[in-house]
Amino acid sequence: MSETAVTADGAGQPVLALCGGIGGAKLALGLYHTLPPGRLAIAVNPGDDFEHLGLSVSPDLDTVLYTLSGLADPVRGWGRKDESWNFMAALRELGGETWFQLGDRDLAMHVERTRMLRAAITLSQAVASAAQELGIAAQIMPATDDRLRTVVLTDEGELPFQSYFVERRAAPRVRGLRYDGAEKAQPTPRLLETLASTKLRAVIICPSNPYLSIDPMLAMPALRESIAHCAAPVIAVSPIVGGRAIKGPTAKIMTELGVPVTNRSIAKHYGDLIDGLVVDFADRRDADGIDVPVCATPTLMESLADRKRLAEEAIRFADEIASR
Amino acid sequence: MSETAVTADGAGQPVLALCGGIGGAKLALGLYHTLPPGRLAIAVNPGDDFEHLGLSVSPDLDTVLYTLSGLADPVRGWGRKDESWNFMAALRELGGETWFQLGDRDLAMHVERTRMLRAAITLSQAVASAAQELGIAAQIMPATDDRLRTVVLTDEGELPFQSYFVERRAAPRVRGLRYDGAEKAQPTPRLLETLASTKLRAVIICPSNPYLSIDPMLAMPALRESIAHCAAPVIAVSPIVGGRAIKGPTAKIMTELGVPVTNRSIAKHYGDLIDGLVVDFADRRDADGIDVPVCATPTLMESLADRKRLAEEAIRFADEIASR
Repeated sequence: MSETAVTADGAGQPVLALCGGIGGAKLALGLYHTLPPGRLAIAVNPGDDFEHLGLSVSPDLDTVLYTLSGLADPVRGWGRKDESWNFMAALRELGGETWFQLGDRDLAMHVERTRMLRAAITLSQAVASAAQELGIAAQIMPATDDRLRTVVLTDEGELPFQSYFVERRAAPRVRGLRYDGAEKAQPTPRLLETLASTKLRAVIICPSNPYLSIDPMLAMPALRESIAHCAAPVIAVSPIVGGRAIKGPTAKIMTELGVPVTNRSIAKHYGDLIDGLVVDFADRRDADGIDVPVCATPTLMESLADRKRLAEEAIRFADEIASR
Repeated sequence: MSETAVTADGAGQPVLALCGGIGGAKLALGLYHTLPPGRLAIAVNPGDDFEHLGLSVSPDLDTVLYTLSGLADPVRGWGRKDESWNFMAALRELGGETWFQLGDRDLAMHVERTRMLRAAITLSQAVASAAQELGIAAQIMPATDDRLRTVVLTDEGELPFQSYFVERRAAPRVRGLRYDGAEKAQPTPRLLETLASTKLRAVIICPSNPYLSIDPMLAMPALRESIAHCAAPVIAVSPIVGGRAIKGPTAKIMTELGVPVTNRSIAKHYGDLIDGLVVDFADRRDADGIDVPVCATPTLMESLADRKRLAEEAIRFADEIASR
């Protein structure tokens, strides 16, 4: 389906994407290039956020900001392209903590955001300001301005997310997950407004890690409820392709949690919350036991064209479900 | 006088230097290379310190740290050599404040120090840690761990030091100076111990700007008193050469304050506090009205050899005064 055809249907209607880091940001970029300017809202996982070297670091938000502004490093996926690492080298000389890599250009984001947060500016406002300065014509928002942190329960004990993911390279065996602060955290007003809008065209759960990237957001009771009651179809794009996870430790974590690495598990995981599941074309014959409509289409996103095509397909699928 | 001769006299006795930024750090480096390891203590001006972008920046301390560790940029005088400026470029993209230049490598110092200060580590401890990591065999200390800030009274109103010096490039006409917090600030215990020691060989006031770099320290009543009562000779090295200031806005400020740009003014400025004044050889015949012993010697420090020679001469002069 052509871009024109997609946008002609519901040009004025916004789409909300729920998004984690690298994998999710790829689809977010596809949606950004598919929808008319200003019609994409992206709620980003705050569970990876942490304080490091006295700075407030929001890795998933930054990945989305850099990806949509064209500043992201195309090879690493995280951080900025044309990056230099002289800050890290100097920090090493001073005996500082160097397990988490902060590029020289990337540092500007952390320093500026930390300054704003200390000046009682909300994370939402700080992100909106960065998005505006970087010329992004989409609403990028943290799912909450409150403190919400993913804690990984491992065979070595509880680990804060970044200690598990970066410092320990996702090596410890995962026994469970906890989303610190989720019970009390409130979704940002803008996110709730977007979900409450009768004009909302679709909610698309990006192919991010369900446990690490999406669940921290869904662990907020008010957000889960708003999604459950929103008028628009809720579509998840599965991060599984042929029994493997596209990116990162999704398959490893599912296995460690005793969950089969299948699209059925993903469908079951999101349960009543979703109205449809997008799976990879390779898995088109393996929809047994998935009790929501399934759309099978290539989900690997190597080129920008791949990203746009998957975005168009997901929106088309959502529109189709809405019209049923 | 040879280096050996200088150190042989009082090898075990420490020398204390009072030091500001670039000009002062040159002599501090000369002293560092002249004295045996561990025999140099440097009390550094805290009046230039400020909070910028949420970071605690201590420009004079850093100039001394970088100069003594060999990391200083030899051309600019401030900041680090082999520096890159990608943080600043990225900060500009984000709409951040860019009037104060922070290099990528230099940032490590500010981030690490800010982290320590927020963790209730004193500035003295943070500086000692940095000096140790950088392999500096001298005691570098802020003159105080308390808040002490130079405020410049100008024809455009009061300006915090960095706003006057960097943002406005020392352009506004100076009507006076104020050292915010100096009345209540306490010199660091180590500085007071050094001054109280009967083993102290000399106190050397570096050829820094008296108003901007030395007076903020002397504005602490307890420090002025300790210097006045210390057993060692107190020597000032004049920043004036042939009626001009060697570096920076010293001459401009003296003129704006109605003070003749002469060594006599410098001697009068420090008054009873000093026991001797080192002036440039070019001014050897212009010692009229200076009522402390004067040592005339080349004071321009272009090479490391110049710095060492001036350091040796200042120590020799101090030893000579002590033996009178």
